[in-house]
Amino acid sequence: MSLSHFDEAGQAHMVDVSDKEVTDRIAVAEGCVKMRPETLDYVLKGSAKKGDVLGISRIAGIIAAKKTADLIPLCHPLPITKVTLELTPDTDLPGVRIVATVKTSGQTGVEMEALTAVSVAALTVYDMLKAVEKSMTIEGIRVVLKDGGKSGRYEA
Amino acid sequence: MSLSHFDEAGQAHMVDVSDKEVTDRIAVAEGCVKMRPETLDYVLKGSAKKGDVLGISRIAGIIAAKKTADLIPLCHPLPITKVTLELTPDTDLPGVRIVATVKTSGQTGVEMEALTAVSVAALTVYDMLKAVEKSMTIEGIRVVLKDGGKSGRYEA
Amino acid sequence: MSLSHFDEAGQAHMVDVSDKEVTDRIAVAEGCVKMRPETLDYVLKGSAKKGDVLGISRIAGIIAAKKTADLIPLCHPLPITKVTLELTPDTDLPGVRIVATVKTSGQTGVEMEALTAVSVAALTVYDMLKAVEKSMTIEGIRVVLKDGGKSGRYEA
Amino acid sequence: MSLSHFDEAGQAHMVDVSDKEVTDRIAVAEGCVKMRPETLDYVLKGSAKKGDVLGISRIAGIIAAKKTADLIPLCHPLPITKVTLELTPDTDLPGVRIVATVKTSGQTGVEMEALTAVSVAALTVYDMLKAVEKSMTIEGIRVVLKDGGKSGRYEA
Amino acid sequence: MSLSHFDEAGQAHMVDVSDKEVTDRIAVAEGCVKMRPETLDYVLKGSAKKGDVLGISRIAGIIAAKKTADLIPLCHPLPITKVTLELTPDTDLPGVRIVATVKTSGQTGVEMEALTAVSVAALTVYDMLKAVEKSMTIEGIRVVLKDGGKSGRYEA
Amino acid sequence: MSLSHFDEAGQAHMVDVSDKEVTDRIAVAEGCVKMRPETLDYVLKGSAKKGDVLGISRIAGIIAAKKTADLIPLCHPLPITKVTLELTPDTDLPGVRIVATVKTSGQTGVEMEALTAVSVAALTVYDMLKAVEKSMTIEGIRVVLKDGGKSGRYEA
Repeated sequence: MSLSHFDEAGQAHMVDVSDKEVTDRIAVAEGCVKMRPETLDYVLKGSAKKGDVLGISRIAGIIAAKKTADLIPLCHPLPITKVTLELTPDTDLPGVRIVATVKTSGQTGVEMEALTAVSVAALTVYDMLKAVEKSMTIEGIRVVLKDGGKSGRYEA
Repeated sequence: MSLSHFDEAGQAHMVDVSDKEVTDRIAVAEGCVKMRPETLDYVLKGSAKKGDVLGISRIAGIIAAKKTADLIPLCHPLPITKVTLELTPDTDLPGVRIVATVKTSGQTGVEMEALTAVSVAALTVYDMLKAVEKSMTIEGIRVVLKDGGKSGRYEA
Repeated sequence: MSLSHFDEAGQAHMVDVSDKEVTDRIAVAEGCVKMRPETLDYVLKGSAKKGDVLGISRIAGIIAAKKTADLIPLCHPLPITKVTLELTPDTDLPGVRIVATVKTSGQTGVEMEALTAVSVAALTVYDMLKAVEKSMTIEGIRVVLKDGGKSGRYEA
Repeated sequence: MSLSHFDEAGQAHMVDVSDKEVTDRIAVAEGCVKMRPETLDYVLKGSAKKGDVLGISRIAGIIAAKKTADLIPLCHPLPITKVTLELTPDTDLPGVRIVATVKTSGQTGVEMEALTAVSVAALTVYDMLKAVEKSMTIEGIRVVLKDGGKSGRYEA
Repeated sequence: MSLSHFDEAGQAHMVDVSDKEVTDRIAVAEGCVKMRPETLDYVLKGSAKKGDVLGISRIAGIIAAKKTADLIPLCHPLPITKVTLELTPDTDLPGVRIVATVKTSGQTGVEMEALTAVSVAALTVYDMLKAVEKSMTIEGIRVVLKDGGKSGRYEA
Repeated sequence: MSLSHFDEAGQAHMVDVSDKEVTDRIAVAEGCVKMRPETLDYVLKGSAKKGDVLGISRIAGIIAAKKTADLIPLCHPLPITKVTLELTPDTDLPGVRIVATVKTSGQTGVEMEALTAVSVAALTVYDMLKAVEKSMTIEGIRVVLKDGGKSGRYEA
């Protein structure tokens, strides 16, 4: 196997996908923001505030999915056809769990879009809660499902 | 303590910092990409390739630091005066450790810029190695140092 | 009828359009900038200046149409195939009338692109004339035609 | 009086503000989205949905304020220090009223930032409700207050 | 022959390409940065630095190709399927030669994408070497090959 | 002398300018687009069209100056205080000469902003005339003046 982002001379390039088929593709990624129980309380207490921390982070993640090719140097631009983000407070963690689902009809997969959506949603959660805790950590960002295209189905 | 990103009515806003002093500020953030030893070998073997995976991810992180206010909805735009990223292969992890340092002279801190730089560098590492391993995970993204401004020094 | 931008739980998402057909779509939007007759004179007098105020605003509107998915959080990115803007001075208004026409072959409509083009062209007219009048107002931005796709033809 | 965006030869340029003082500046702009009473009901009924339509449009407006210099060709880039948006349902209109307040310490005013925030918030309201009504109109976008800088206070 | 970017009235517009066929298209552009022999030595000496100046400029060019429609007002947005850049030190010039190849399946050509990639790669070479020489010049940016689409093959 | 964009280990970084003084800075860059006499005729004949090719390219250059830090990976973001572009048809060349002047009050110079403005204006001239000539070339992009800051005045 080899790293497709490099040619034979070891030079980085944006891989030629012009001969790949346009197929329906989906990717699901997840991650979480760990925080102190008292910090999570700020997310949980009061429906207005809860809506805002999670709601704004969801929107930030959706917007970020559309910016993926602008952030990741060798990513192909893709016409995304669906983005959803689930942000769930979890008192066991404690923290916020994030799952992003992205779909496209295109020539390359959308796992980078899903990972980017999770990452930026997590950064936004951090930003909105950092006034009460600076020691939050972003953990476990990974692809849980990828399907469509030649390389077949991947499930974590 | 309260969440500064919300006003008394619980509405999100970009906090008024116009009365805060312009001071020198610094933030350091870290994180890592965990992978299989064989995947790390692709980073380690061959100076050209090593340079490329880590070098390109470093550049992606530097560029991303400048896009922070475009990615995080309530972040203030800031004139960054320095960005550095260290990407270090670690066979014990195994994987790649990432540390970002950002400085500014401004009215708000730069921890979001440092966290964004680490996150996007990590996503780029993932992107460049995903052809050989889809199960990599991004872990432990956090602020390790923040100094300057009224809230004083924070060290993890 | 329901708001397609929200799922059953009331969470915002970017709607799944992957099963919608790729069809030719067109949208026309309009709006105007109302101003004092003396302000409109700056647009009308002198071909160079007239060209510039209207010409630059036209270009700003065309560029903005391409940024629509970057501005409107839940908008799908679309490969626009045509954008035209008409900016017409109207001494009866008095002010400048703006009409934008956008076409695509895609899975969703382009009315947001047309509305965004009109809005940003109007803002640019304001920007270029604000040195002589601050009391201009932007009025009547609306969709006048939308065609293509499952929901059929709409005409205002 | 003359149009500052053009030089003596009638050529467009970004005005030289390097000799203008850095002062605290504020601008307030307003506008509204007019709709049918039944459409407004979608905004009013159900706290989750109400939060989402207005909350997401507020975020879109805040983000757009930061993009002003990217949208308006001759606008100077400015380090915004505050952005707030009020979106208020109004059954008399009927529709949604939008007010944006922007502050900076800089060499030029922020009325374009405030107008842009209102415009993009209004476009987002339209986008989120267009599934139930295409005939909504965006009306009355204007500057209501501008202060700071040499040209003094303006109030509509 | 006429300038397709203007309509009959001489107004600029983004040309309607909705009736053009989606075909495979390729464009190759070239250019160079001329510098003093001593400046080129900084590129040539030391593999790390050589890698960095040329490697970073290559990445900047690839990223820029994806921003073409954002930079060139009347350019259509295009789903690029391949970008490669060759940056070659040339002691005869003396300087760095740059060649960019871009492919797409779309309704318009990609020569602007290839020219933009070369231009921004050249600007980045300048930026990275300007500490040692300010008198470098960027020369000979042109299209060397364009194929696909109705207008047929062009070779310089 | 050394390349300031690399640290001692040869790693690329965005140089720390936080200790540099904020001073008034100016840079002037130039370049040209060479074309056949018949192509230049399209620019010269008819005031409407002349205005458009050169006027639109001027606007593209002004907008691009504001995007410099987004295009050049290691460039610091800067609050530009002035941008002007002169585009002059030259029948001797034959072609279009472009001169850009950029000013700021900041901690680093603006020669990259001036060079970027010239480059993108030149690309836009190419884009608008390519329907009648594909063999145009962009030539002689260089810094002609740079002043302000510690390194002093440079004149080509």
